[in-house]
Amino acid sequence: MLGQTATASGDFLLDDLPGSSGRIDVLLRCIRAALLFSHGLRSDVRVYLVLRGGPAAPRVLRIDSKSARFIRPDERCLALLVKKTLAASPDDLGSQFVELRPGLALASGDLDCVLADLGEAALTMLEEQALDIRGVGLERDDAAYFLGDHLGFQPADRERLNALGATAVSVGPLSLHSDDVIAILSNELDRLEARTR
Amino acid sequence: MLGQTATASGDFLLDDLPGSSGRIDVLLRCIRAALLFSHGLRSDVRVYLVLRGGPAAPRVLRIDSKSARFIRPDERCLALLVKKTLAASPDDLGSQFVELRPGLALASGDLDCVLADLGEAALTMLEEQALDIRGVGLERDDAAYFLGDHLGFQPADRERLNALGATAVSVGPLSLHSDDVIAILSNELDRLEARTR
Repeated sequence: MLGQTATASGDFLLDDLPGSSGRIDVLLRCIRAALLFSHGLRSDVRVYLVLRGGPAAPRVLRIDSKSARFIRPDERCLALLVKKTLAASPDDLGSQFVELRPGLALASGDLDCVLADLGEAALTMLEEQALDIRGVGLERDDAAYFLGDHLGFQPADRERLNALGATAVSVGPLSLHSDDVIAILSNELDRLEARTR
Repeated sequence: MLGQTATASGDFLLDDLPGSSGRIDVLLRCIRAALLFSHGLRSDVRVYLVLRGGPAAPRVLRIDSKSARFIRPDERCLALLVKKTLAASPDDLGSQFVELRPGLALASGDLDCVLADLGEAALTMLEEQALDIRGVGLERDDAAYFLGDHLGFQPADRERLNALGATAVSVGPLSLHSDDVIAILSNELDRLEARTR
């Protein structure tokens, strides 16, 4: 998730997330959509939030479903968890991820931190107007999906990902909220897994 | 949306929605998923929240996308809007919907209020293990979709809807949060509309 304005520090108000956090609320809702289903946490999902807002930016928050605890669906609880984690950042934070809470790790840097951490994963951008997700063969294992926030992708991000061989897919005819895009993408992957299991 | 425990009065805390509202947070997230897309409100969606928790229950809150204003995606803003609307209920509220804010109307009653208000709409339940939504012909116009909350459907609701000829569909192999189910259902309807436009 590329957060163009989402604040990279814990310096936002729980009572006014949209107004005080550079719209980190958009990304919080994506955490829920990516990690949770009815019976708990998905077993093998990592969410990377690229936070480009505020003086501490850029930073990347990584949440790993394998080891994360206390991931609740409601936005305020997620906001509090993220706020505490960002506030706990050490002064010498570098481009390597440092785990600050179970399953939550932070790095100083931008998209490159994510790409270095992903290794050999197949890269796919979720974009309006791209090929329909139902018509392409999705990668099931070691796949990474990139989404913009409410502002979409910046041209430089698109160029960087294209240069690495990223493909682009869309989830349907309308431009949707990022968390809804994740719900639809996850559903497509669930269906793929059910077919190939 | 059938909220088994969601409080029917404005008597809940914005700072602790999951703990103080009978999980009205589950329903708030469904409002966002049903009504909003990237560029604003969907043009022709009505959300009914059946609120069965607390002393004022049962009540139904109806939100109509055609006339609703100030529908924001973040949970706290939605909670405040719903809280104010519930708190503004007149003492003599009956089973007819009374509009209390633009697009937001309240009635005293349960599922029957919804059914009476729907008229001739085709009824469909979203249920795990039912027929796959991709294999059935969805109704595009005047269709009503029923979802449970985190507790699912009560047997009496299922029987009532079945007796009225409701069908059941599922959105995929996993049990998902209600807001994700709505995102996937909306996507299916968007695709249907794009095909038949």
